[in-house]
Amino acid sequence: MLTSLAPLVVALTVLATAVMAASAAIQAVRQGFDPFGAVVLAVVTAVGGGTLRDILIGRFPVFWIEDLTYIATAVPVALVSYMAARSMRAGGGRRLRLLLYLDAVGLALFTLIGLQIALGAGVSPVIAIILGCTTGIAGGMIRDVLCGLQPSVLKEDLYATISLAGGAVYVVWREALSPETGLMTAFALMTFARFYVVWRTRPRDEPLV
Amino acid sequence: MLTSLAPLVVALTVLATAVMAASAAIQAVRQGFDPFGAVVLAVVTAVGGGTLRDILIGRFPVFWIEDLTYIATAVPVALVSYMAARSMRAGGGRRLRLLLYLDAVGLALFTLIGLQIALGAGVSPVIAIILGCTTGIAGGMIRDVLCGLQPSVLKEDLYATISLAGGAVYVVWREALSPETGLMTAFALMTFARFYVVWRTRPRDEPLV
Amino acid sequence: MLTSLAPLVVALTVLATAVMAASAAIQAVRQGFDPFGAVVLAVVTAVGGGTLRDILIGRFPVFWIEDLTYIATAVPVALVSYMAARSMRAGGGRRLRLLLYLDAVGLALFTLIGLQIALGAGVSPVIAIILGCTTGIAGGMIRDVLCGLQPSVLKEDLYATISLAGGAVYVVWREALSPETGLMTAFALMTFARFYVVWRTRPRDEPLV
Repeated sequence: MLTSLAPLVVALTVLATAVMAASAAIQAVRQGFDPFGAVVLAVVTAVGGGTLRDILIGRFPVFWIEDLTYIATAVPVALVSYMAARSMRAGGGRRLRLLLYLDAVGLALFTLIGLQIALGAGVSPVIAIILGCTTGIAGGMIRDVLCGLQPSVLKEDLYATISLAGGAVYVVWREALSPETGLMTAFALMTFARFYVVWRTRPRDEPLV
Repeated sequence: MLTSLAPLVVALTVLATAVMAASAAIQAVRQGFDPFGAVVLAVVTAVGGGTLRDILIGRFPVFWIEDLTYIATAVPVALVSYMAARSMRAGGGRRLRLLLYLDAVGLALFTLIGLQIALGAGVSPVIAIILGCTTGIAGGMIRDVLCGLQPSVLKEDLYATISLAGGAVYVVWREALSPETGLMTAFALMTFARFYVVWRTRPRDEPLV
Repeated sequence: MLTSLAPLVVALTVLATAVMAASAAIQAVRQGFDPFGAVVLAVVTAVGGGTLRDILIGRFPVFWIEDLTYIATAVPVALVSYMAARSMRAGGGRRLRLLLYLDAVGLALFTLIGLQIALGAGVSPVIAIILGCTTGIAGGMIRDVLCGLQPSVLKEDLYATISLAGGAVYVVWREALSPETGLMTAFALMTFARFYVVWRTRPRDEPLV
């Protein structure tokens, strides 16, 4: 990992952990889980992508074992998000849309974090882009499978694709310009693209709990 | 791992393996699986939690690869439990309740085993408690996901919580008193708490296959 | 791994990857996924079994990280299979049967590959047979779980059993005769057995999308 980016990667991971934990807590409310189940779902969702990435590249123990920060972030964020989402009136799709917007931010953050760590581990750029995508999409896939749903990444247009494209932008930009510029451009592109897709394909006919 | 507790941990793992294999075989009967499917489900359920724990702390090859005991325990127990559960008349919730009581014993045993091994690997007590909980709940989660069900740990009050509380009791007790006392107290507390919850929340309105 | 068999194992892995990617793409069409979702499902299905095997025996980074061949095989095969399956008229079970025949070839190939690699890693023959079965069945299990289905390995007679039996045949034959003869005999036996089961138990009463 580039030494200068290490603190930034930690900060982004904490932020991404919080965002994904919140998305999982909202899904837990939609599924009628209790607060304890919501916390378990939130922790698994928040650390799932990074855990899978660490396992695939053989980086042990996985990131959250040596540093309690990530779980200490996910648990309170999940509880607060659970309470907030439960107080929102069901119907109208507001909760689902909030979940999808949070998920979009988490996708962009985790993609860039996974990419950074994979490049730091010395894998080739193409594999690094794939591992960035894995880190970005795995948490949400685990969340959806544990809720008994088909993962949205498999059904929604331009989900993994946005992650792969954002990763490719970062890999090119950091050579051509600078790592910091690459991070910011790729983050903006991925978030904007997902926000646009979520906004354009807002659900109209599925039952919105 | 404390040397004096090593044989006890092996014995408890064999017992927990048998209990979780039996719970999975009962679930397989409820889902209408054939005996072959029941054995696959039972093996995955019985070794799943410990396998995930070994992967997370980077202990390779995972425990059941070097010692055939665990799979050699799970397979015959699964077959016998499958036959026994198939001979029980469906309805009345007896099979589901038996499954939940076995699952409670498995949760307590695997929590303590996971905790022991995590502490032996040198992780901090808080992470060890989380890894104990992971070892305790992961097998049942995998079982439920493979059956197409939402994992009961996410929906049932006080499931992961009991595992975390039992782990905390063990960590405190083994310092204050002795590891053996800690193991027994924590096991009794977790089993009693889960038994009480299962007894109190026995299902009345769901279709009991 | 026996040096003389190494190129054969690579060739078989590429073939198995293609076959499993095609089976996943057909399942994606049956589930109404878009092409992007089909590619994600195909890659996860195609590399899932081997990834799990590498993790269990502690072989890092996992096989597809150091060699782009496998992902570069799965992606185009998935796209072509997706287009082909979408042009087949739904109904009559033709797509499901094609999926099951491809899956049978994948099961046989991945079983033998997993077995080879496990034996090469120095595990005992019985564990090697179990790891061969794991490599053979895990990809399809992940595919089915991600589609929200109960894995067919749990419900279909003689699925894991055929993989275990084929593995046992290989282990005995390669001592008694030669590794090459063992590979071919075991492959023929497993494929024939699964083809026969699929043909005999062809679905008549389930809705065939």
